[in-house]
Amino acid sequence: MSGLAEKAEAFRQLHHGNGILVLPNAWDVPSARTFEDAGFPAVATSSAGLLVSHGYPDGEGMPRREFVRAIGRIASAIAVPLSADLVAGFGRGPRGVVATVRAVIEAGAVGINLEDKEPVRGSLFPVPAQVRKIRAIREAATSLGVPIVINGRTDALRAESIDATKRFDEAIRRATAYRDAGADCVYPMGLTDGPSIERFVRALQCPVNVMVRAGLPPLSELARLGVKRVSFGPGASYATMGLLRRISEDVLKRGSFASLLDGAISFDELNRLAVPRTAPPSPSD
Amino acid sequence: MSGLAEKAEAFRQLHHGNGILVLPNAWDVPSARTFEDAGFPAVATSSAGLLVSHGYPDGEGMPRREFVRAIGRIASAIAVPLSADLVAGFGRGPRGVVATVRAVIEAGAVGINLEDKEPVRGSLFPVPAQVRKIRAIREAATSLGVPIVINGRTDALRAESIDATKRFDEAIRRATAYRDAGADCVYPMGLTDGPSIERFVRALQCPVNVMVRAGLPPLSELARLGVKRVSFGPGASYATMGLLRRISEDVLKRGSFASLLDGAISFDELNRLAVPRTAPPSPSD
Repeated sequence: MSGLAEKAEAFRQLHHGNGILVLPNAWDVPSARTFEDAGFPAVATSSAGLLVSHGYPDGEGMPRREFVRAIGRIASAIAVPLSADLVAGFGRGPRGVVATVRAVIEAGAVGINLEDKEPVRGSLFPVPAQVRKIRAIREAATSLGVPIVINGRTDALRAESIDATKRFDEAIRRATAYRDAGADCVYPMGLTDGPSIERFVRALQCPVNVMVRAGLPPLSELARLGVKRVSFGPGASYATMGLLRRISEDVLKRGSFASLLDGAISFDELNRLAVPRTAPPSPSD
Repeated sequence: MSGLAEKAEAFRQLHHGNGILVLPNAWDVPSARTFEDAGFPAVATSSAGLLVSHGYPDGEGMPRREFVRAIGRIASAIAVPLSADLVAGFGRGPRGVVATVRAVIEAGAVGINLEDKEPVRGSLFPVPAQVRKIRAIREAATSLGVPIVINGRTDALRAESIDATKRFDEAIRRATAYRDAGADCVYPMGLTDGPSIERFVRALQCPVNVMVRAGLPPLSELARLGVKRVSFGPGASYATMGLLRRISEDVLKRGSFASLLDGAISFDELNRLAVPRTAPPSPSD
């Protein structure tokens, strides 16, 4: 997997430039390819976007094999690095999570997101348990020779089990532990206001990922605050379904096809999005 | 498959009302559900939209099993009738095409599109060969007890092998043969101008499907011309990728997240699109 090793390293470097890495999250081949064609230097998947696209609510209800196949389809279609959002890893404990990570690396991913929220009950995993998983992932990736970028997500800021006044400190405590266990980047879900982002970045002293949402400071301000990575999350899926609603309303209420036709790409442009640009990496090379 | 029989019959009736059946073409679960939620009485798939979404150029390059699974995911997620675009049937000759039709009926589809263009070479199948397939499909559907709606598409209007002055008559000849072989609706790909649509509808005297594209007369005019069905084709996929391009340009050139956030739906709204509304039909009921 020598090609993957270089791709993983190139992806890591994107977290250490002067600017911010803006990472668009795709859910299928053409969404990923459109982002790549537009000039994004890397693409990620969104778990909600990808799972819902396949008919599963966000979480881990999609069979792991089917999930990995979907990641592989996207990885095979693009040339830039792909980071796969693995929810909580599709497995209980380090062994299960590592099996998923190996599978997505073999499918062509060079980065992963791992969250610390139990996907069914919604409770937070104990820090030592999450740390063990991150350490095991780092070791497995090293033994595969692919230095993947691990983005350690914490949901502490939205944990109802934690007193609201203590969530911020808990998020810093968790992110610090994940960083020390081998995460390259940390991702405090729900961090949106400038002063909190600044405090968080200063406390962590490693790349911090924030998600685009209404109220997030503009890119220039995020750069000033020291943010290194901004991801869309499921934002492009939200936007797409919003467009389909407007198209539907236009047709059903006004008998108009305007929003279906305005700004659309052509058949040839759509079709080209599925013509492979790179060969899928095989586990044996 | 008693539920499917009623659904197929309800779908057929939508072609015989006073108005026009407007059929939006989806490519995955949330696009289909968004159309259903908006109030469309039936949903179709677009072959280009669905195949490209899975990483295959339009045609039949997607393995049949994977294609049928994708149809099944969509059929299981919606309550309204689903029509599956089968390209040329994913099989050579009546037997192969019938196997595909059986599989998509078992997956929950109650309508199909079948085109008369060979998917690799692009040449038109001889009329007798296409007629044999349509007859075999009708017989198979009858023996399954599911009176599916067959939409017989002809690509004669765009066939380079036919003299341009003779294409229109050839399209009428083919559509007539498909109608007589058991197609409920005929679909002359590329028919867009009012006078030609009117001549075609008068010649066929059965439901005619036209596709939305720039230059198509408005719905009210299509109704006056006697059109019974208007489909989006891959239009919603074109529109969606157009939006992703604008989002990308907004972010990369202007550092703005406005087109990502404006008019977007919420996480809960996206997630609900994957919560099953109906149980998937099983082959045994």
